[in-house]
Amino acid sequence: MLKTPEQYKESLRKMRPNIYKFGELIKDVTTHPYTKRTIEGHSRIFKIQREPEFQELVTKVSPLTGDRVSRYLTVNEGPDDMIANSRMKRLMFNLTGTCTGGRCVGYASLNALWPTTYDCDKAHGTDFHGRLKAWLKRSQEADITLAGALTDAKGDRAMGPCKQSDPDMYLHVVDRDGKGGITVRGAKAMICGVAAANEIFILPGGVYKEDEKDYAVSFVVPRDIEGLTVVEARHPSDRRDEEEGFDNPVACGGITQAYLLFEDVKVPAERVFLDGQFDQTKTAITAFTSAYRAAIGSCVAGQGDVMIGAAMLVAQANGLDDKPFRDRIVQMVINNETTFGVGVASGVLGKKHPSGAWLADPLLANVNKVLVGKVPYETKVLAQDIAGGIAETGCMPSFKDLQDERYGKLLKKYLKAHSDADTRVKVARLVEWLTMGAGVPGCMHGGGSPEGAKVLIRANMDLEKKIEMARHLISLEEPIPPKDKEKDKKR
Amino acid sequence: MLKTPEQYKESLRKMRPNIYKFGELIKDVTTHPYTKRTIEGHSRIFKIQREPEFQELVTKVSPLTGDRVSRYLTVNEGPDDMIANSRMKRLMFNLTGTCTGGRCVGYASLNALWPTTYDCDKAHGTDFHGRLKAWLKRSQEADITLAGALTDAKGDRAMGPCKQSDPDMYLHVVDRDGKGGITVRGAKAMICGVAAANEIFILPGGVYKEDEKDYAVSFVVPRDIEGLTVVEARHPSDRRDEEEGFDNPVACGGITQAYLLFEDVKVPAERVFLDGQFDQTKTAITAFTSAYRAAIGSCVAGQGDVMIGAAMLVAQANGLDDKPFRDRIVQMVINNETTFGVGVASGVLGKKHPSGAWLADPLLANVNKVLVGKVPYETKVLAQDIAGGIAETGCMPSFKDLQDERYGKLLKKYLKAHSDADTRVKVARLVEWLTMGAGVPGCMHGGGSPEGAKVLIRANMDLEKKIEMARHLISLEEPIPPKDKEKDKKR
Amino acid sequence: MLKTPEQYKESLRKMRPNIYKFGELIKDVTTHPYTKRTIEGHSRIFKIQREPEFQELVTKVSPLTGDRVSRYLTVNEGPDDMIANSRMKRLMFNLTGTCTGGRCVGYASLNALWPTTYDCDKAHGTDFHGRLKAWLKRSQEADITLAGALTDAKGDRAMGPCKQSDPDMYLHVVDRDGKGGITVRGAKAMICGVAAANEIFILPGGVYKEDEKDYAVSFVVPRDIEGLTVVEARHPSDRRDEEEGFDNPVACGGITQAYLLFEDVKVPAERVFLDGQFDQTKTAITAFTSAYRAAIGSCVAGQGDVMIGAAMLVAQANGLDDKPFRDRIVQMVINNETTFGVGVASGVLGKKHPSGAWLADPLLANVNKVLVGKVPYETKVLAQDIAGGIAETGCMPSFKDLQDERYGKLLKKYLKAHSDADTRVKVARLVEWLTMGAGVPGCMHGGGSPEGAKVLIRANMDLEKKIEMARHLISLEEPIPPKDKEKDKKR
Amino acid sequence: MLKTPEQYKESLRKMRPNIYKFGELIKDVTTHPYTKRTIEGHSRIFKIQREPEFQELVTKVSPLTGDRVSRYLTVNEGPDDMIANSRMKRLMFNLTGTCTGGRCVGYASLNALWPTTYDCDKAHGTDFHGRLKAWLKRSQEADITLAGALTDAKGDRAMGPCKQSDPDMYLHVVDRDGKGGITVRGAKAMICGVAAANEIFILPGGVYKEDEKDYAVSFVVPRDIEGLTVVEARHPSDRRDEEEGFDNPVACGGITQAYLLFEDVKVPAERVFLDGQFDQTKTAITAFTSAYRAAIGSCVAGQGDVMIGAAMLVAQANGLDDKPFRDRIVQMVINNETTFGVGVASGVLGKKHPSGAWLADPLLANVNKVLVGKVPYETKVLAQDIAGGIAETGCMPSFKDLQDERYGKLLKKYLKAHSDADTRVKVARLVEWLTMGAGVPGCMHGGGSPEGAKVLIRANMDLEKKIEMARHLISLEEPIPPKDKEKDKKR
Repeated sequence: MLKTPEQYKESLRKMRPNIYKFGELIKDVTTHPYTKRTIEGHSRIFKIQREPEFQELVTKVSPLTGDRVSRYLTVNEGPDDMIANSRMKRLMFNLTGTCTGGRCVGYASLNALWPTTYDCDKAHGTDFHGRLKAWLKRSQEADITLAGALTDAKGDRAMGPCKQSDPDMYLHVVDRDGKGGITVRGAKAMICGVAAANEIFILPGGVYKEDEKDYAVSFVVPRDIEGLTVVEARHPSDRRDEEEGFDNPVACGGITQAYLLFEDVKVPAERVFLDGQFDQTKTAITAFTSAYRAAIGSCVAGQGDVMIGAAMLVAQANGLDDKPFRDRIVQMVINNETTFGVGVASGVLGKKHPSGAWLADPLLANVNKVLVGKVPYETKVLAQDIAGGIAETGCMPSFKDLQDERYGKLLKKYLKAHSDADTRVKVARLVEWLTMGAGVPGCMHGGGSPEGAKVLIRANMDLEKKIEMARHLISLEEPIPPKDKEKDKKR
Repeated sequence: MLKTPEQYKESLRKMRPNIYKFGELIKDVTTHPYTKRTIEGHSRIFKIQREPEFQELVTKVSPLTGDRVSRYLTVNEGPDDMIANSRMKRLMFNLTGTCTGGRCVGYASLNALWPTTYDCDKAHGTDFHGRLKAWLKRSQEADITLAGALTDAKGDRAMGPCKQSDPDMYLHVVDRDGKGGITVRGAKAMICGVAAANEIFILPGGVYKEDEKDYAVSFVVPRDIEGLTVVEARHPSDRRDEEEGFDNPVACGGITQAYLLFEDVKVPAERVFLDGQFDQTKTAITAFTSAYRAAIGSCVAGQGDVMIGAAMLVAQANGLDDKPFRDRIVQMVINNETTFGVGVASGVLGKKHPSGAWLADPLLANVNKVLVGKVPYETKVLAQDIAGGIAETGCMPSFKDLQDERYGKLLKKYLKAHSDADTRVKVARLVEWLTMGAGVPGCMHGGGSPEGAKVLIRANMDLEKKIEMARHLISLEEPIPPKDKEKDKKR
Repeated sequence: MLKTPEQYKESLRKMRPNIYKFGELIKDVTTHPYTKRTIEGHSRIFKIQREPEFQELVTKVSPLTGDRVSRYLTVNEGPDDMIANSRMKRLMFNLTGTCTGGRCVGYASLNALWPTTYDCDKAHGTDFHGRLKAWLKRSQEADITLAGALTDAKGDRAMGPCKQSDPDMYLHVVDRDGKGGITVRGAKAMICGVAAANEIFILPGGVYKEDEKDYAVSFVVPRDIEGLTVVEARHPSDRRDEEEGFDNPVACGGITQAYLLFEDVKVPAERVFLDGQFDQTKTAITAFTSAYRAAIGSCVAGQGDVMIGAAMLVAQANGLDDKPFRDRIVQMVINNETTFGVGVASGVLGKKHPSGAWLADPLLANVNKVLVGKVPYETKVLAQDIAGGIAETGCMPSFKDLQDERYGKLLKKYLKAHSDADTRVKVARLVEWLTMGAGVPGCMHGGGSPEGAKVLIRANMDLEKKIEMARHLISLEEPIPPKDKEKDKKR
Repeated sequence: MLKTPEQYKESLRKMRPNIYKFGELIKDVTTHPYTKRTIEGHSRIFKIQREPEFQELVTKVSPLTGDRVSRYLTVNEGPDDMIANSRMKRLMFNLTGTCTGGRCVGYASLNALWPTTYDCDKAHGTDFHGRLKAWLKRSQEADITLAGALTDAKGDRAMGPCKQSDPDMYLHVVDRDGKGGITVRGAKAMICGVAAANEIFILPGGVYKEDEKDYAVSFVVPRDIEGLTVVEARHPSDRRDEEEGFDNPVACGGITQAYLLFEDVKVPAERVFLDGQFDQTKTAITAFTSAYRAAIGSCVAGQGDVMIGAAMLVAQANGLDDKPFRDRIVQMVINNETTFGVGVASGVLGKKHPSGAWLADPLLANVNKVLVGKVPYETKVLAQDIAGGIAETGCMPSFKDLQDERYGKLLKKYLKAHSDADTRVKVARLVEWLTMGAGVPGCMHGGGSPEGAKVLIRANMDLEKKIEMARHLISLEEPIPPKDKEKDKKR
C-alpha cells in the first residue's frame, strides 16, 4: 500500500529519537529545522507516486506482492527499469533541487544483494536469498523508506581492516547467536538521508579476503534500533536552517549525511543477508557500484536542469534575456545530457543475472562516475558566470538586514533591478544554494571516488583487444618482446 | 542474398568508370591506388556478414524479404536496432581503422525518407512510400552498397538557394517528364565512400520554403548514371597511396570524399522519393540528423579504440609498458565510451514513428554531435602524447630511405628500440595515420557542423520548463516582467 | 611611518561605527566575530612590512615622501613594480588563505586615477592630479588602509544610468558647493574589505557619455564619513564566525563584502579627483581594469598554493603520501603558475604613461581575467578530489558534536585515520573552507566579469593584422568583397 | 656583418651535399622541392634583420664584436633579451606560418653551454668557455645559421646508454687525439632545420653519470663535415612539395626534421665544449630546457595568430563575417596569449648566472612546455571548427583537378562561394596546412616531452612550503607521522 506524505511523516514520528546534531537530540525529525527540509524532499516521492503523471515512473507492479509499489523498493529486471531508474532520479533532483539520498542507496543495496544472495546460496547452501525476498515483500507492503550504508570509518587508508590498530575501523560481526542472528560493531560514515528513513540497508564496505570474513556482512536494521546512534554531519551554510526568511531558499529539499555508530547492535537472522561469505563481497560491491554509478549521472543532470533555470531567473531579474547566454546554456545542457546519457547507456547495455536482476554495464557505469567528478563542476561555474557577482558567493545582505527598519528600504532600493529586490535576492540565493550552499551534494565521492572508478575502468577496458585491433590493421605479426623487468631493476 | 567480398568487388568492376582524381579517370576502382583501400575496407562488411561471430550484428531479417539482409539496408524498428547500429559502426572502425562512409549515410538516408515518405503520402496523397519500399526490397535482394549525399555546394553561405547568383548552387529539379520522372542539376559536395558504392541516396540539403520547392527533392541513382561525374577530393598525405611500403600503413581501410557533379541527370519515377513537397523537408532533415548523429559517437569511439592500441604498440616498441600511461589510457577510454554511450542513449530514448521507423532522441543525438567535435581531438592528443616524438608528426625517414643501400642500415640501427626498426616505424606510422594522416575522418563537420547541432539543442532543450523547476523550488510566484525590447532599442 | 599591527587596529577602533550585519551595528570591528578575521588578515600586512624577509616586497621608497611606505599606497612606475605587485598579492593569499581585499582595489584605484587626473588636467585645465598627489602623500605618511569601490547598484542591466526609473541606481553628484566640494548619492555594491579600511577610493562605475556626466565622479572618503552606511553581505557558512572551535578553521584571514549606502554625503574639494569630465572615464576604467586584472591571477595562484598544501595534509592524515596524487598536484601547480605567469607578463609588457605610471598590457590583463573565471575552479575540484569525501562538502560532525559527552569519543574513534581525529577534521575543514566555505573569494566577477574582459580582448586583439599575416603567407592579393549586409537583411 | 638573403643562400650552395630524402641526394638545398621552402622561411630572418621595423628585435649589439649581430647568435643577458626572444620567435611564426627550427635550437644550445662551460672551467680547470667565446665571435662575424641537436637515438627507452646492446644508441666519443680533438659516433634524431643551417651545435642528450662520461660531450660541426650523413624525415602531406599549384599553399616557410648519422666524425679541439665532464650535464640540460621552453609558448602563439587569420579568411570566403565566431576567436586569442604570457614570465622571472647569462625560471618554463602540449591543439580544433568542412581535412579536389579541361570549370562553379573558387580553395588549404599538413610543427615533444617537463615541475614546485602554508593557516602544530612504508609492503 502506497503511503501518503502524511503517513510517511507519521511513520518517522513514531520512531525512537536517536539522531543528534550540534549536540542536540532531535525529538521530531519532521519538524526540527536540522532535518525537516530533507524529510520534506523525501515526502515528495509519496506525493507524486499517487499522481497519474508520475506514477508509471516512480512505482512498479511488484512480482512479489502483485501490487504497485515504490520503484525504490524493487529489483531492476531489464533495460526499461534502468531507464526508469535514471529518469526517476533526475525527476527527484528536479523537484527538490538536490539529493533525496535516503532512498537511492537503499535501492542500489537491495539490487546488489539480490544477485549476491542468489549466488551465495548456490555456492554455500545458505538461505539469504529467501530471507531477502521475504524482507523485501514486507517492506514493499509497508512502503518503507530505506537508506543504505556502505562506507566504513576505514582508519588509516594505507591498511586493510585487519591491520588497523583498532579492529572496529570497519564494521564487523563481534558475536553470533547460533541461530543466524549477529551482533555488530563499527561505524558507517557519511550516510545520506538517514533522518528521512525507516530502515537502513548495510553493505560490506569492500572486497574482503578470508582473514577478513567477519567484515563480510550485510543486513538491514530499523533506523532506531537499540545500540545505534546517529550523528548528522554539518554541511555548508547549514546554520541558515535555523534562520527565518529566504537566505536558505529551498524548503522542499535538503541533504543530510550521518555517521552511524553501531555499539554492539543485535540483528535477528531474518534481517541478515551475508555473514562471513567473503568470496561474495566482490559481487556485492560490483553490483552495487554498477547500479549506483549508472544512475548518478542522472542525479547531477537533474540538478543541472535546475541550475539552468536558476541562472536564467537571475538573468531575467537583472533585466537580461537568454540571448547573451545561449552558448553557455547549451554547454550546460550538453553537460547534463552527457552524464544522463552515459548512465542510460550503462543501464541499457547491461545483462541479466540468473537471479532475475539486471546488472548495469560496469565499464560505462564507472565512466559515468568519473564524469560526475568533473562535468557538473563546469555546469556550476557556468551557472555562477551567468548569474553574476551577487550569486557567485551569495554576495548580498542577509534577509534580516533587508527587513531592517533603519536601512532595509535603502538596501531594497539598491538591490532592485528589472525585478524587485526580494525576487532578485531569492533567485540569487538559489544559485548560491545550488553551487556553494546546502544544496550541493557530495557527488564526486558519493558512491565511491573517481579514483576507484578508474581502477574498475582499467579492469573492464580490455586493452589487449585494442592492441590486437591495431596490430591487425597494419598486419603486424612480429611479437614485441615483453619488458625484461629484472633487467630494469638492475638499472 | 548476401554477397561475398569478391561478388561485391565484381559489382563495382561492372560499372561505368566516372570517377576522377588528380585528373585521371579511374578505370577499376578495386585496384587503383586512389580507391582500392576504401573498397578493401568496405569489403570487410561482406566478409563479416557471413561469419557467425558478427552476423547477428551486421545483418537482420528483413520484414520486406523475409531473408537476412545487410543491416545497412534496413529500417530501424526499435531500441535493439539502435544499439546494433552503434555497435556495428564501432566495429567497422575497429576493423578498418577509419570510416566506411559509403554505407552509413545511405543507411541514415533511407531511415530518414522512410518516415518522410509516409508522412508525405498522408499529407499529399503521393505514393513515395510505396516506391521507397519497392526500391528497398530490390536493393536488399541485390545486397547493394548504398552511399548517401546531403551537402550541396551552397555558394555564398549568407544566402539561401533562391538568392544565389547561380541557381545550381543547390541541387534542384530542372525538368519533369510528366510521369513522375525528373531531371536534376547541381552538385553534392564531400560525399563519403562513393567509389565503394553501387548507388547513391540523394537527400534535400536543407529545410526549404515554398519558393524553394524545386530544391525539395530526394532520389536514388546508380553511381554510374549518365550525366554524373565524380571527382574525389584529396586528403592529407594521400600521395602515399601511390607509394610502396608501410608509410601508408593500412591496406584494409581508407576514406574517400567526392564531389558529385550532376549535369541534367534523368531520374526515373520509381527512384524519386520527394519532388517539391517542401513542407516535408523538415522531417527529412530531422530524421536524418538524429539517426546519423546518434551513431557518430560510436564511429569516433571505434577509432579511439584503435588509437589506444596503436599508442600502446609504440610504447611497447620503445621498451615501455602501460604503467606510466595508465591515466592517459583511462582518459582515452572515458572519451570513447562517453561518445558511444550518449549515442546509445540517444537511440534507446527515441520514439516510434507511425511508419514503423524508430526515431532517435534529437536532443541527445545533437549533444553527441557537439561532443564529437571536441572529445576525439583530446583522444588524438593523448595518442600522440603516449606515442612520443616520432609518431607525433610521423617524424621518421621514408620507407624508401630505410631500404637505401647507402644508409638504410644505419637508419635501422638507430631506429631500433625495444623492437626492431621496421616494427617501430610501422606502429609509429599507424599513429601518424590515425592522428595526422589519411585515416583521419572529418568527423567535426561530417553529418553537419557542431554549430548546427547547437541550434537543434536549443530547439529541443525546453528552457521554460527548467525555469519553472527553479521557480517551484523557491515558491516564486511573482512574475518577472519580460524585457521591453522597444525601450532597449532606444538606448 | 609604517604602522604596527596594533597601531593599525587602534586606527580602526577610533572610527565611528557605521557597519551593520544581521541587523546589528558592529561597535568594534577588530573584535566582533563578523569582522575580526578579515582585520586579522589585513593586519598581517603591517606585521610583514616590518620584517626583513618581506619588506622589500611589500614596501617601497616613495618619491613623494622619500620614505619607505606600503606598496599598496604607491604608483607603479615600471616592470619591477608590476612583478612586485603580483608577488605581494600571491604572498598575502599564502598568508591569509584568502582575499585581503581592503587594499588591492584601493591600490588599483589610485593607479587608475593617477594617469586619469594627469590627462584630465591637460585636457580640461583642472587640478585633480595635484590634489591626488597631495592626498596620496598624506595617506602614505599616515599609512592608511585604503579600500576601493567601483561597482554601482546598476538597477535594470538593460539600461544605462539615465534611463533608470530611479536616478540613484548609479552613484552621482547631486550638489556642488561651488568651491570644488560635492554631495553624492547612490550605492556601491559588493565592496571588499571595507571593515578593515580607513578610507575608500570611489571610482566611476563605467564609461560615461555627456548626458551622464554627473555620474563621472571619483573621490576618497573616510570609511566613517557622515551619511555613509555600510551593510556587510553574508557569505557561505558565515554563521560559523560566531561559533567556537575549528569548524571555521582560519582565524588569520577572512573576506567581507559590503554595500555602501551614500545618503547625500558631502566630499570636500581636496578629496575630489573627477567631477563631470565624462571623457576621462574611459581612461579611468581601462587603467583600473588593466592594473587589477594583471594581478588577479596571482591572487588565485596564492590561494591555489594553499589548496595544494591543504589537500596534501588531508592525504597525509588519511595515511597516504603524495605518490598517487602526483599528476593532480602537478596540474594544480600548472594552474597556479599559468594565471600567475600571464599576470606577470601583462605587467611587464605594459607601457609608461606620461604621468609616470606604468600601465599593464590590456590584452594580457584581460586574458588573465578570463582565465581566473575558469582555471582556479579546476584547482578546487582537484583539491576536493585529493582530499576525499569528508573534505568535499565538509561532511563531518560539528566541533560541538566532537566534544559531546555522550558520543564525542566514539566520533573521534571513528574519525581517526593515520592522524588523530582532531587533526584530520581540522585539515578537512580547511579544504572545505577553501573550496566551499568562507575562504572562497568571488574571483570570477571580482574586478568585473569574464564577459566584460572578452569585450576588451576583442578590442585589443587586432584581428585585421592576423588576417593580413594569413594572406601574406599564401600571397593572396585578391580582395574578398565585404558582406552585403543590406542584401542579408532582405533574406 | 649581417648577411643578405642571397648571401645566406649562397653560403648554403657552397656546402658539400650530404642530405638525402626519398633516397635522393639533394644537390642544391636552396632549389630542391624537398628543402627550398624551409630555406625560404629561414631567409626571411636575413631579410628583416636589415629592416628598421624589425632590426631592434632580431639583432643585438654583441659585446664580443661591438657590432649588431643576429639575436640568434647571442647570449641572453637579462629580462629584455628574454622578452625579445619570445617576440622574435612569435614574429618568425607569423612570417613563415611555421617553425624556422634551424636557428632556435642552436640559440638555446649556445645559451646552455655558456653557463655550463663557465662552471666547468671553474670546477675542472678546463678552457671550454674561452673556446666557446672565440667560436661565437667568429660565428657572429660570419652571420652563420646554427642548428642545434640534443635528442639521441636512445634505443630501448627502459635502459640508459651503458645498458644498451649497442653502445652507439647515444652519441659518444670513440677516440681522442690527445690535443683536445675528439672522434664521435652515434646519431641525433629529429633535428630541425638542418638543411637551412651552416653549422650544428651538438648537446649531450641527457644527464649522465660517471660511467657514462663518454656520452657527456658537446661540440659544434659544420653541417657538411666529413663522416656526417643527413637523412630528412618525411612529414605529413610532404609529397605535395613536388607538386605545382596551391595544394601546398605556403612557399615562404616549411619544416624539416633530420636524422644525423655520425660515422666517426672528427671534431677539432676549438669546436669541443664538453668532453667527459658528466657532472656538468645537469647544468647543460637544465639551462637548455629552461631557455627553450620559455620561448616555445611564443612559437605556438605565433602560429596561433596565423590560424585565427586563416580561419577568418575561410569564413569571409564563405560569405560570413566574424560575428558568429566571436567567442571562438576570443578563445583562440586567449590560448595564444596564455602560452606567450607564461613564456614571457618565465624569461623575466629568471636569474643571472655568474657567466653573465640570464637563466629563465625553470618552473614557469616547464609549465609552459606542458601547456604547449595541450593548448594549441584546442586552437587548431577551433580553426577547423570556424573554417568548416572543406578545411577540416582539406576536403577539396586537387589543384590539378581544378585545372582539368573536362570538369575543372564545373568544380570551380561549385566551389565558388562569396569569393571565387581559387581564393576559397587556397585559404582552406592554408587551414589544412596549419592544422593537418606540412605546417604542423611537432611542438608536443619538440624540446622534450610534456612528461619530462612534469618531472621538472615536481622538482621545482616546493610542495613542503605549500604544506607549511596550510599548516600555518590553521595553526596546526601536531606532526602527522610519516607513512610506515615497511608496514605497507607487508600488506
